[in-house]
Amino acid sequence: MRLTAYLLSNFKQVKRMAPANVSDVEKKLHGVGLAPLDAGKLVIEKNPNPRSPPPAKGLVFGKTFSNHMLTVPWNAQTGWGQPKIGAYGPFSFDPSTVIFHYAPSLFEGLKAYRDPQGEVRLFRPDKNMERMNTSADRIALPRFDGDELVKLIKKLVDMDKDWVPFEAGYSLYIRPTLIGTQPTLGVSANEEALLFVILSPVGPYYSSGVKPVALEANPARVRAWPGGTGASKLGANYGPGILPQIEAAKQGFQQNLWLFGDEHWLTEVGTMNLFIVMKKNDQTLEVVTPPLDGMILAGVTRDSVLGLLRAHSSGEAPLAGLPKIEVSERNINMKEIVDAAEKCNLVEVFGSGTAAVVSPVNKIGYLGEDISIPVGDSGFGAVAESVLNKLSAIQWGKEEHPWSVRITE
Amino acid sequence: MRLTAYLLSNFKQVKRMAPANVSDVEKKLHGVGLAPLDAGKLVIEKNPNPRSPPPAKGLVFGKTFSNHMLTVPWNAQTGWGQPKIGAYGPFSFDPSTVIFHYAPSLFEGLKAYRDPQGEVRLFRPDKNMERMNTSADRIALPRFDGDELVKLIKKLVDMDKDWVPFEAGYSLYIRPTLIGTQPTLGVSANEEALLFVILSPVGPYYSSGVKPVALEANPARVRAWPGGTGASKLGANYGPGILPQIEAAKQGFQQNLWLFGDEHWLTEVGTMNLFIVMKKNDQTLEVVTPPLDGMILAGVTRDSVLGLLRAHSSGEAPLAGLPKIEVSERNINMKEIVDAAEKCNLVEVFGSGTAAVVSPVNKIGYLGEDISIPVGDSGFGAVAESVLNKLSAIQWGKEEHPWSVRITE
Repeated sequence: MRLTAYLLSNFKQVKRMAPANVSDVEKKLHGVGLAPLDAGKLVIEKNPNPRSPPPAKGLVFGKTFSNHMLTVPWNAQTGWGQPKIGAYGPFSFDPSTVIFHYAPSLFEGLKAYRDPQGEVRLFRPDKNMERMNTSADRIALPRFDGDELVKLIKKLVDMDKDWVPFEAGYSLYIRPTLIGTQPTLGVSANEEALLFVILSPVGPYYSSGVKPVALEANPARVRAWPGGTGASKLGANYGPGILPQIEAAKQGFQQNLWLFGDEHWLTEVGTMNLFIVMKKNDQTLEVVTPPLDGMILAGVTRDSVLGLLRAHSSGEAPLAGLPKIEVSERNINMKEIVDAAEKCNLVEVFGSGTAAVVSPVNKIGYLGEDISIPVGDSGFGAVAESVLNKLSAIQWGKEEHPWSVRITE
Repeated sequence: MRLTAYLLSNFKQVKRMAPANVSDVEKKLHGVGLAPLDAGKLVIEKNPNPRSPPPAKGLVFGKTFSNHMLTVPWNAQTGWGQPKIGAYGPFSFDPSTVIFHYAPSLFEGLKAYRDPQGEVRLFRPDKNMERMNTSADRIALPRFDGDELVKLIKKLVDMDKDWVPFEAGYSLYIRPTLIGTQPTLGVSANEEALLFVILSPVGPYYSSGVKPVALEANPARVRAWPGGTGASKLGANYGPGILPQIEAAKQGFQQNLWLFGDEHWLTEVGTMNLFIVMKKNDQTLEVVTPPLDGMILAGVTRDSVLGLLRAHSSGEAPLAGLPKIEVSERNINMKEIVDAAEKCNLVEVFGSGTAAVVSPVNKIGYLGEDISIPVGDSGFGAVAESVLNKLSAIQWGKEEHPWSVRITE
């Protein structure tokens, strides 16, 4: 069965069955008369023993945290409680707490950047809030007003703004997380939850030069499925990916290229979205990324790369050094990749995500064969490099763009 | 594509790709020269403020816990640490701890039963240990010697044996859990872990008489898939099932009947395995349960029900009141269910699991139609009732059987 036919048949069944839609669940989880998330209720307890940020050199991703964190409790009886910014420190949970047993968790990742004026900026935080609520719907955790959480995040980052590095390419990683916290072993709708945000200074992804990655495309390991949770940023989508990555590493590959179905459709790469650049018969370039079909995460970087490429394509905002490009959100399978490689029409492959922005690919291992993919002398193909430069300029505020917002007015 | 053909093609790809197999990962996680789990190293710190067990009446599943718990730390440098039985109480974890972000968790559920002599028994704990290690392989958590953990569980239950209820049908639920605990946001193999076991007295599943359940078979919600994690008892398999259950409840159904693929193969029900009893053309009975194909949890109760039915079938140990039965582990789809129902050949449907042992089904909602399923005056069909009686007799030690083991020699 073709992928599209399969998805369509599932979609028809959804309509025919008329199941409760997500907004019904949202209503249940939000509740009538329950308190909404309200940044105006924020209470601040300053860390009495603040630390100084460590030297930026030597930072390892996700191991160093700033002086403060944001926490907001929720329960099904009263709704969202009082937001609090307090000292970064451990949580205490009963051993029966649901987060230890049934994986009711979702998260986001975004960054704060130091601009040339020394001010601090966020990149499209509204997109993270939107996706966080979509994830909450899927895992039966409560929705909230994203604008309110952005206000709280800005306040938190502002309090710890000396943790936003000044060094080129460094940034402050922001991790909003929402977990179920009721102390019971029953498998049912979450009754209690905790929203928290922590901050971690991080180095440039390419600290010692660009390293293109080799991908293992193993059809026996499947990340997501129609009717599953692949489109949501749930903890439950990440833990199960670790064993396939260990397996790939043993074969000499850095990441998994996640395939789907018996025709081996490409979906994502590792924890990133996927872009393929191909030469068409008329020698023009097509950039392909798989469509948001319910199995693929709606990456903020993916959306930004698509936006930049389309603005280039239309002539509205040309990207430096690139020819005319056709931009396609469409299904693409391994047969098309193999065919393009054989005809020397496979120009570039790269992943997109918050950590690396773009991550070039130089090899795909598939059914015992290696498919080589060109990378330029810089380690990047031309499209990946041009997109990286443009996006970085926007993120670090070297180029004004509506996507980049200062944390203070 | 037929399900079996699909699975076979995936299996062939696994062999062709020769990915690292699970035992390689096991070696990595166990490590050469690392300390194994050793019950002989147990240290006990008695709860200085022990509580008395509450009255058995009024117990709600998974909300009441005994005086002690077992904890065993693990890390990738030294292996398994010292097992400790101490006072039941909260864990303290850094907000960056991986369990809050990427769902590295697995668990088991088994029970301790009070036998007619007042002694305490476990039911097939070796099967839970075996599955726990299989789950650990899949989620990149460390393996351990199951016999050692059974020794520790027996000791823990013995210390809190006054929490094993004397009332008929009551038992002490045992929850072994294993979680990743390293404080880092990197998505990679677990470096630290915590194994813990907690105890919860529970009432009979059918406290106010048997209530047959109605199932919603919604093809748009999919629990597991080939190449995924459905065969492992991971937290990541449970949280995502809550929204579909809320949706089913809104349509008036108690549980989900999980289907797979475009031919709507039956897989599991809610958090239980599934049995279907059908009349064949020659009027003999066939009991069908879907095979362990990598998508289905290998339930201990499922295995026990199959064992009892086969012993009945062979004449080795006939079950009371049942005719000759053919026992089949085979794929079965909704078309076969609908056909059997139309011909009045659908005799019984029931789920099997630790909590209820067997849970009878009286209705399946499918594509907007309701399929009615007979249940006897007792609420059970004849097969479910006979199996329930036999298994309960073994579990509560009213009938000696090798599956039931006392916690002290």
